[in-house]
Amino acid sequence: MENQQRKVRLGLVQTSCVSSTSENIQNHIRLIKQAAEDGANIVCLQELFTTVYFCNEHDESNFDYAEPIEGKLVETLKELAKELGIVLIAPFFEKRARGIYHNSLVVIDVDGHLLGTYRKMHIPDDPGFHEKYYFSPGDMDTGFPVFETEFGKMGALICWDQWYPEAARMMALQGAEIIFYPTAIGILKKESRKQKKKFKEAWIAIQRSHAIANGCFVAVANRVGKEGGNKFWGNSFVCGPFGEMIVQGGEKEEVIVTEIDLDDIESQRREWPFFRDRRIDAYQGILNRYIDDN
Amino acid sequence: MENQQRKVRLGLVQTSCVSSTSENIQNHIRLIKQAAEDGANIVCLQELFTTVYFCNEHDESNFDYAEPIEGKLVETLKELAKELGIVLIAPFFEKRARGIYHNSLVVIDVDGHLLGTYRKMHIPDDPGFHEKYYFSPGDMDTGFPVFETEFGKMGALICWDQWYPEAARMMALQGAEIIFYPTAIGILKKESRKQKKKFKEAWIAIQRSHAIANGCFVAVANRVGKEGGNKFWGNSFVCGPFGEMIVQGGEKEEVIVTEIDLDDIESQRREWPFFRDRRIDAYQGILNRYIDDN
Repeated sequence: MENQQRKVRLGLVQTSCVSSTSENIQNHIRLIKQAAEDGANIVCLQELFTTVYFCNEHDESNFDYAEPIEGKLVETLKELAKELGIVLIAPFFEKRARGIYHNSLVVIDVDGHLLGTYRKMHIPDDPGFHEKYYFSPGDMDTGFPVFETEFGKMGALICWDQWYPEAARMMALQGAEIIFYPTAIGILKKESRKQKKKFKEAWIAIQRSHAIANGCFVAVANRVGKEGGNKFWGNSFVCGPFGEMIVQGGEKEEVIVTEIDLDDIESQRREWPFFRDRRIDAYQGILNRYIDDN
Repeated sequence: MENQQRKVRLGLVQTSCVSSTSENIQNHIRLIKQAAEDGANIVCLQELFTTVYFCNEHDESNFDYAEPIEGKLVETLKELAKELGIVLIAPFFEKRARGIYHNSLVVIDVDGHLLGTYRKMHIPDDPGFHEKYYFSPGDMDTGFPVFETEFGKMGALICWDQWYPEAARMMALQGAEIIFYPTAIGILKKESRKQKKKFKEAWIAIQRSHAIANGCFVAVANRVGKEGGNKFWGNSFVCGPFGEMIVQGGEKEEVIVTEIDLDDIESQRREWPFFRDRRIDAYQGILNRYIDDN
């Protein structure tokens, strides 16, 4: 680790999607190249980047959008990562077997090597977000895997995972220096400006808190645009280990590239040595759904 | 629960302390009465309310400040709670036995009955905050106890605990509707305005995040004033289950009283049903200090 580059440039791509997956992929290739031109070392795409956010409806034909890990999409991305010399985090609708689909992502290293896969662990199901219909919850042995890349140790969670301190903690305990959150979040058409403000501020606060509690960087890539009843609010951002905002996007298509210094992790953890004092003897209750009254 | 009052008025007392414990107690009695006059149903005092924040030095004589739970201080507080008809959360330096001291709090119900005790579980030890010298970490069987009061189910953690999502989660899983954080936090004299801003914003964000992740209210009472090298920043606050700020104090002595509606918990948890989707099968790693590489 000592000889590793500590200044790293993170790239986040936020854009809108159309019904044609090939158009979405082409559009993303253009934006990934733009991020690389701006010097990005690690580029993170938004959740389900190849498709519209089809989970706003129950429709069997949407399963056609799914692709296997071993297939043309990932091959294209591997070549692209290698060509640009970037680490690429690409989330898409995975077909694992007939009848088994996941909301997944792949992490590809600078040499085009597939570092690994993450399958979304926490699956939402709410009005406008019917994910339990489409996705089996992740069941990999690794659970919340982290990856040693050319540019630091990192993990990537997906959207609804962002509300769970346990998920971020699992990654930090395995040494993640950056946690990425590809996301597709917004409001429903019927929701008010006031609700949007409340939801968005909560969404920012919870993710900043993961950076603080775990003394690491957090980088979020969120979709923009209107799709059916959903209005995605973008606002992709990067924050440092004190939860301080380093960069924050708007609500339009945007390629965000910013430099971070991984040595800030060491400074924060010396200033606030939270890990030293965790009461690992007393957290057993967390493994319960609920601790019922006797 | 159904017939229980759902609108509750919370009172937070933030003040400065002097070397005389009797003066501090008298001052607090005055402020508690003021909160009760403003209609507070539950009043929470700041950490170690009877004393200066003596942990900024290593001095054996400071152990003289400690008091047993069964003693004059708690008797006085029980009478006061009963007289005012309030739930009282009172944190003080506890002498449990010769050589065993805790940073504790008592929760007293409206009838003057001692509902229970909490002993701080996470003990810091940093420049200006030498708590490991004075306090044994909490070791009660209940770990993170919650209490059914006249005005809702609640738990109270203490200061450094506020940085640990696990502690808040433990309380929420036991049904806490409000989590209180009596606190003594600030900056050292030598620290800059910029550092203060960074630290304070992180401190607010992490506590708002506990409200969000757990769909509950969070109420924080923090000391003010200068003591030796410490400058406590007050800013006691209450936030709702979306992490939304309901009230926030300044940096001077203040009695904050605000009404909350416990039914907001139900609304938040229907809007965002995080508890439904927790991956309790996959959080085992949290019980480790660190998950070392193989």
